[in-house]
Amino acid sequence: MSTGTLVLLRHGESEWNALNLFTGWVDVHLTDKGIGEGKRAGELLKEHDLLPDVLYTSLLRRAINTANLALDAADRHWIPVVRDWRLNERHYGALQGKNKAQTKAEYGDDQFMLWRRSYDTPPPAIEAGSEYSQDTDPQYADIGEVPLTECLLDVVKRLIPYWEDTISQDLRAGKTVLVTAHGNSLRALVKHLDGISDEDIASVNIPTGIPLRYDLDENLKPINKGGTYLDPEAAAAGAAAVASQGAK
Amino acid sequence: MSTGTLVLLRHGESEWNALNLFTGWVDVHLTDKGIGEGKRAGELLKEHDLLPDVLYTSLLRRAINTANLALDAADRHWIPVVRDWRLNERHYGALQGKNKAQTKAEYGDDQFMLWRRSYDTPPPAIEAGSEYSQDTDPQYADIGEVPLTECLLDVVKRLIPYWEDTISQDLRAGKTVLVTAHGNSLRALVKHLDGISDEDIASVNIPTGIPLRYDLDENLKPINKGGTYLDPEAAAAGAAAVASQGAK
Repeated sequence: MSTGTLVLLRHGESEWNALNLFTGWVDVHLTDKGIGEGKRAGELLKEHDLLPDVLYTSLLRRAINTANLALDAADRHWIPVVRDWRLNERHYGALQGKNKAQTKAEYGDDQFMLWRRSYDTPPPAIEAGSEYSQDTDPQYADIGEVPLTECLLDVVKRLIPYWEDTISQDLRAGKTVLVTAHGNSLRALVKHLDGISDEDIASVNIPTGIPLRYDLDENLKPINKGGTYLDPEAAAAGAAAVASQGAK
Repeated sequence: MSTGTLVLLRHGESEWNALNLFTGWVDVHLTDKGIGEGKRAGELLKEHDLLPDVLYTSLLRRAINTANLALDAADRHWIPVVRDWRLNERHYGALQGKNKAQTKAEYGDDQFMLWRRSYDTPPPAIEAGSEYSQDTDPQYADIGEVPLTECLLDVVKRLIPYWEDTISQDLRAGKTVLVTAHGNSLRALVKHLDGISDEDIASVNIPTGIPLRYDLDENLKPINKGGTYLDPEAAAAGAAAVASQGAK
């Protein structure tokens, strides 16, 4: 049986990426740069003849619109779409809406990195009903309890069962699957795929807007460990920029 | 049991609308005006608190992108999406790519109106494999025989069984359903809903970019016959413009 190809794509630059704010589940728009990144991602897919058969996205518009732009540019706007909250960004709790540099200055480097990159320590919970919480948003009415904060482990726990039930099945059926999501939901997925330890995942950073291709064996283990970025040079620069967030 | 609400939306102005060309299944882009119409349609949905639970679109990018723009503007970008070729525009056969005014001048008013508005006479078939045919496009690989021309009756024949199997079911479940499609696929649907005769449907014209709301009874018959445009003044002007196509 042929095994499919997985393409991961982190959304293009959002308004809050540009403002250096913690975003999480806050549903911000793409910037003009982010719109350009979405289109460029689609051109890369087309140039590499890596044409998705099905799209999975989060419920957040920065991922949805990145996918729409990319698929239109790749002439694959017509493929089936599946949206699910389990692909959403990590919920950043009470940090949502806060400036990264100010948070770092206020709480110090260690606390800042703990909140950003600890595997199992979530930030403080956001207050239910507050400006940047999502507990009354209609798109989450059916999911049970809406998170008030999450660590990466929480994302793994919601994402991997969903991966097994849905995306994996399409890959086993031989499809090329595009997953358009977020820095931390994609880190959770890459951790699972590449078997990265709870410690080592802290230093894995995923750049915005550059398709990352995984060729998988019959057990859905990567043949090309770590995946292959369609634009490796831009990906390296982008990953370094993510790693240094909060420095400015 | 509550019955849902149906919202029909014809795509915004396309590049070939602007050039006054027969389009059919040719997959042209929206113009800047069309992009604006898509956004405006979403604002109208939001202003009228008419918030879709599910989207159905054709496989053509002018309908897909109109829906994407409208849903983003209405903060409903996250709803489930179903795409199907049976919502596609009528295939215009050998007329695809031809200028409407030139065609009218060349063939005369009667032949021109027969091709545009006859219920059961299709235009001449397009040659398979030619520049504006779709018989080798990957999005239609699974549909069996790709049309080489269609009359409105052909559209009714492919659309209404699909309507019964899918969209109707969502409406019976009480959902608000947005259908983003095309002048003739929406005329086929309106003919069915409102019980319009084969003759009278010739004079029904649907403007671009203005949501048309149908409230349906338990048999899915319209309570508001003919539907209700969310911007009636713009809709009247738009319908008149469609009726006069080919005049310039």
